Amino acid sequence: MSNHSQRYLREVPALDDVLASHELIKPYIHRTPVLSSRLINEAAGANVYFKCENFQKIGAFKMRGAMNTALRLTPEEIRQGLATHSSGNHAQAVARTAQLLGTKSYIVMPDTSPKSKVAATKGYGANVFFCENTLAAREAKLREVIEQTQATFIHPYDNYNVIAGQATAAKELHEDIPDLDVIIAPIGGGGLMSGTALITRYLRSEASVYGAEPELVDDAYRSFKTGALQRNNRIDTIADGLRTNLSDKTFNIIRHYLDDIFTVSESEIIAAVRLINERMKIIIEPSSAVPLAAILKNKPIFNGKAVGVILSGGNVDL
Amino acid sequence: MSNHSQRYLREVPALDDVLASHELIKPYIHRTPVLSSRLINEAAGANVYFKCENFQKIGAFKMRGAMNTALRLTPEEIRQGLATHSSGNHAQAVARTAQLLGTKSYIVMPDTSPKSKVAATKGYGANVFFCENTLAAREAKLREVIEQTQATFIHPYDNYNVIAGQATAAKELHEDIPDLDVIIAPIGGGGLMSGTALITRYLRSEASVYGAEPELVDDAYRSFKTGALQRNNRIDTIADGLRTNLSDKTFNIIRHYLDDIFTVSESEIIAAVRLINERMKIIIEPSSAVPLAAILKNKPIFNGKAVGVILSGGNVDL
Repeated sequence: MSNHSQRYLREVPALDDVLASHELIKPYIHRTPVLSSRLINEAAGANVYFKCENFQKIGAFKMRGAMNTALRLTPEEIRQGLATHSSGNHAQAVARTAQLLGTKSYIVMPDTSPKSKVAATKGYGANVFFCENTLAAREAKLREVIEQTQATFIHPYDNYNVIAGQATAAKELHEDIPDLDVIIAPIGGGGLMSGTALITRYLRSEASVYGAEPELVDDAYRSFKTGALQRNNRIDTIADGLRTNLSDKTFNIIRHYLDDIFTVSESEIIAAVRLINERMKIIIEPSSAVPLAAILKNKPIFNGKAVGVILSGGNVDL
Repeated sequence: MSNHSQRYLREVPALDDVLASHELIKPYIHRTPVLSSRLINEAAGANVYFKCENFQKIGAFKMRGAMNTALRLTPEEIRQGLATHSSGNHAQAVARTAQLLGTKSYIVMPDTSPKSKVAATKGYGANVFFCENTLAAREAKLREVIEQTQATFIHPYDNYNVIAGQATAAKELHEDIPDLDVIIAPIGGGGLMSGTALITRYLRSEASVYGAEPELVDDAYRSFKTGALQRNNRIDTIADGLRTNLSDKTFNIIRHYLDDIFTVSESEIIAAVRLINERMKIIIEPSSAVPLAAILKNKPIFNGKAVGVILSGGNVDL
């Protein structure tokens, strides 16, 4: 690994950056399987290939971006530890990354976080700090923790190293299924979507790139259609991984590289979760089902095509 | 494929019979993945390799035995169709086998069968006949249907072709993980267990072969310990795939080739289901969790070993 390929990324990742990211993180992540289901293909009228990031370490793709960021820090920065604020998969990803690299993690979580998420994060060795459940309180607490510890903040998506890491999931999918006509991913903060779009443009420019989003948190849809960054007015979707807003970095990539964004209702998300549970025998979080819901809602667009879907994660309270 | 390797098996399958069975059914079954989980390994104190037959066609290993039996029938027999009585996975396996071979299936189901099971069986093109939920009523109805249709009855386990077919799951597991110290499977009627035991003795004689059974339906445990075929007195275990009794053919293999049988409580089964759901993100039926429950209950026996587990299926009402 050359120094160049390990440098901290400060601009939109190029093809070489994603390739180097993949080599960098490979020893620390699972190459997740690609599954398909005859009955889902019949229901969709398309050949759908599911990239199963629910089987990734910590149960979600977030492991890729967190690890890719951490491995690009200096040894001294790594020694001082990693920090973030999150109540979800990114918290576990940062904690597990730090644990694998033999350093400390400091995670700020809202005091309303489910006990199971707190326990999982602590289970990866994290030092957990609680705060009120507002963005301001989370950011204030994180600043305080970082001042005390000198740990490095890893943002969940507004970070090109994170985006390049998340791109490696779609890279593996293109390697396994080289003739995709379409690729589609869910959009929350846009890190997974940005990475998916970039690597698809680099490796398979003829494929269409779509995003899928719950109607209730359609900031990306409205941003894409209006050309100006919008924010969510509510966060009450069942797809809890998609409640966040796009950032400048992710919106900039999404506006340039996506073909379209589809929105789906809560009941369409639930139906897609059930279909994947029953037909594929795998556990996914609701966010993961949003792309299949979009496919089933827009069948003529996908008819007869080879469609890649990123199943983002499987962390759900059973 | 020689005629010899396709002959209908009328005695305990030899190694060559299992090898030929695998070649015969390969075009019609999935080669299912072998998964493992760091956290389950830590909990068990062993390296546990799960053979995921929940991802098999129709969601269970039963597809292997049904297909292996059907493919050994004469063309005229296949033309006249396949028949069985079952309210569970074997019904779906026989129906799907007939559908794939372009012939008819006749399935006798108790009128108390869950609608979802009936719908799934009909979804594979079966002609479904209902009867009272007693073994006598089921057998009487099946005789009547076979008299009318001349279809061939495929018994769910008291059939060496079925046993040789079920053995191919463990064969694949030994191929993928060649250094297993132990293999363990759940015991219902004993078809999967018999096949698993036979192929393990043939391919890896140094490995221990264990069975796992719910305490509430411990006919195999009592048969194994007493040396005489016993029957279940109750059938109210959550592991609905394991409520059946051993047959002469399966008991004969099990008594000779198993090292031991472990029983587990209902709460131990439920805890093992949850562990697999949460840590592996896969859906299994309770029967599939019985071997892991036995491992966790008997840790000293499995400590530090490479343990193969057959996850039998994933058909569960969610």
